[in-house]
Amino acid sequence: MKCWQAADLVIQLSSSSKTKPDVLDFGTVFTDHMLTIEWSVTEGWQAPLIKPFGNLSLHPACSSLHYGIQLFEGLKAYRGDDNRLRLFRPMLNMNRMANSAKRACLPAFDQSELLECIRRLVEIDQDWVPYSGSASLYIRPTFISTEPSLGVKKPTRALLYVILSPAGSYFNNDSEAISLWADPKYTRAWKGGTGDCKMGGNYGCALFAQYEAVDYGCQQVLWLYGEDQQITEAGTMNIFLHWINEDGEEEVATPPLDGIILPGITRQSILELTRKWGEFKVTERYLTMDQLCSALKQQRVKEMFGSGTACMICPIGHILYQGENLHIPHQDKNSHLTSQIAKELTDIQYGRTSSDWTYLV
Amino acid sequence: MKCWQAADLVIQLSSSSKTKPDVLDFGTVFTDHMLTIEWSVTEGWQAPLIKPFGNLSLHPACSSLHYGIQLFEGLKAYRGDDNRLRLFRPMLNMNRMANSAKRACLPAFDQSELLECIRRLVEIDQDWVPYSGSASLYIRPTFISTEPSLGVKKPTRALLYVILSPAGSYFNNDSEAISLWADPKYTRAWKGGTGDCKMGGNYGCALFAQYEAVDYGCQQVLWLYGEDQQITEAGTMNIFLHWINEDGEEEVATPPLDGIILPGITRQSILELTRKWGEFKVTERYLTMDQLCSALKQQRVKEMFGSGTACMICPIGHILYQGENLHIPHQDKNSHLTSQIAKELTDIQYGRTSSDWTYLV
Repeated sequence: MKCWQAADLVIQLSSSSKTKPDVLDFGTVFTDHMLTIEWSVTEGWQAPLIKPFGNLSLHPACSSLHYGIQLFEGLKAYRGDDNRLRLFRPMLNMNRMANSAKRACLPAFDQSELLECIRRLVEIDQDWVPYSGSASLYIRPTFISTEPSLGVKKPTRALLYVILSPAGSYFNNDSEAISLWADPKYTRAWKGGTGDCKMGGNYGCALFAQYEAVDYGCQQVLWLYGEDQQITEAGTMNIFLHWINEDGEEEVATPPLDGIILPGITRQSILELTRKWGEFKVTERYLTMDQLCSALKQQRVKEMFGSGTACMICPIGHILYQGENLHIPHQDKNSHLTSQIAKELTDIQYGRTSSDWTYLV
Repeated sequence: MKCWQAADLVIQLSSSSKTKPDVLDFGTVFTDHMLTIEWSVTEGWQAPLIKPFGNLSLHPACSSLHYGIQLFEGLKAYRGDDNRLRLFRPMLNMNRMANSAKRACLPAFDQSELLECIRRLVEIDQDWVPYSGSASLYIRPTFISTEPSLGVKKPTRALLYVILSPAGSYFNNDSEAISLWADPKYTRAWKGGTGDCKMGGNYGCALFAQYEAVDYGCQQVLWLYGEDQQITEAGTMNIFLHWINEDGEEEVATPPLDGIILPGITRQSILELTRKWGEFKVTERYLTMDQLCSALKQQRVKEMFGSGTACMICPIGHILYQGENLHIPHQDKNSHLTSQIAKELTDIQYGRTSSDWTYLV
């Protein structure tokens, strides 16, 4: 594979720096620079370029706009108490991005070289990483087809780019547990599809259901799957159940990576972390609405939470299901498990604990 | 609904006209002008604009590029022997586009006003409609979110645009029957998804399977669904089976619009046309691979074909299924049924038969 090297990076600095606002809605403000790398089937990868943030000029037939040949990643840069900047397990993002690219018929790239280019971009815009233990700089690698023709075919041109956005917390009101709407009428992902990749189509098709959830007074969709109404994901998060299982064992469970579940990096980290603790059983297993309802009746549920890069860990307070508002036990951010996980993860992210999950900028 | 009117159309003519090439790959060459109509939640729809064809300037966070909030349509303008230009049932496209927009959380628009704007665009670029009874001008309405932020949410900005591309036939070698690869490992669409809308994500997630079909020496994927391996679509076409059914009746059958099938306009027209003939049973029904294999063994299959705007009607010659290359009877374009359907449709499209399916430009 002929790919670019970070050593070929061309840097065009912006002549001015934008003002950095205080209060931020997620993903609305961007830094001064962006990284772009162009590819064509005839010329291969061009040298990576860091340049002033600005609009893309795209052919109107571009197949990323017609056929959803597009994918993205999401990771964050954290400013520690020591003022150093850290990424959290970024090679897992690079690896997942490469898997998504394969599924989308976009070209392969060198994951380490891309990470080094991203590191340089964050370094250049380092003043944009918030001086805060609860905020961070969100990094959005994006990879789109720029094929300028209408046949449904493998792209002959593509653009990989990375933009940066300073981020507070994803949900406006993250101190409280969120409410979910569970209805089998919409499906997020299905066997033989792309639910295990971060391709755009997974999100666009979910939006309509999201607003139906809001109409029902809930914040997110609890995505169900199949005849037995398996619990799969919540909104754009992986989902965890902390309970006493059918065999009377304390268990933290999340659905297995069977093709319809996004292999979340926070998900993987929570599994690895809690397994290391060895305090309870940690399982990747199917969980159905029937099992959840039985466990709620028998008071075997300790808590449920979503996980993701944007929100990290998010307790679930209610599930509206078949006309009934199921109350999920939770103690906000003070619950033992969610607060212990959140503390261990943020201690690593902000450099209070040394860890090989840390990647220094 | 406050929407634009075609009467508000602003026209900026190109100062030059591009050369019109002879041999064309589908969707690679575009005409001199395009139609663009901008929307924002604060200002509503802007006046429609016809302007010289050119690139779009898009914010790199634009949610059509990240979350597949995008949809399209496809229809054609035909030049008749009388030199008049005709569209074929264009209000069906406008209606389907409105349905897709609702599903994608994009704003509603007035379908008749959009059609009138498209008519004006075709009129302006009328010299681009081929002087040929087998070619046409392909019309591609596109509707994308231009929301410039990264939250997964309803767009606050959008762009509806239309581009035109002179088209020969979709497949390079359309005189021969195509081959299909049938394997349940990939699924095109699923209940609770967007398979009945023309949203980009339906196509991007299908591309990988398409190239696996090519690796197996086939041209397109025959999309199967569910445990019973229902036959749903072929590549980007609806599918028809002409056979003697289980009850010994001659039947033309196509899968019903149950949410996973695109409501094709050629599909609908073939159903209406053959029902009017009254020569055999015409049915929207489930068809499984088992039923097809039995019928092939018992020599009850007369032919199979795909239908779509790009290809119109396309005979199927072989299906590679479970390691076996199933031969499907066909007589190329001379078979009774496919040639009769093709003749009746093209007679309407090119104005040799008068029909209320015709819309004059």
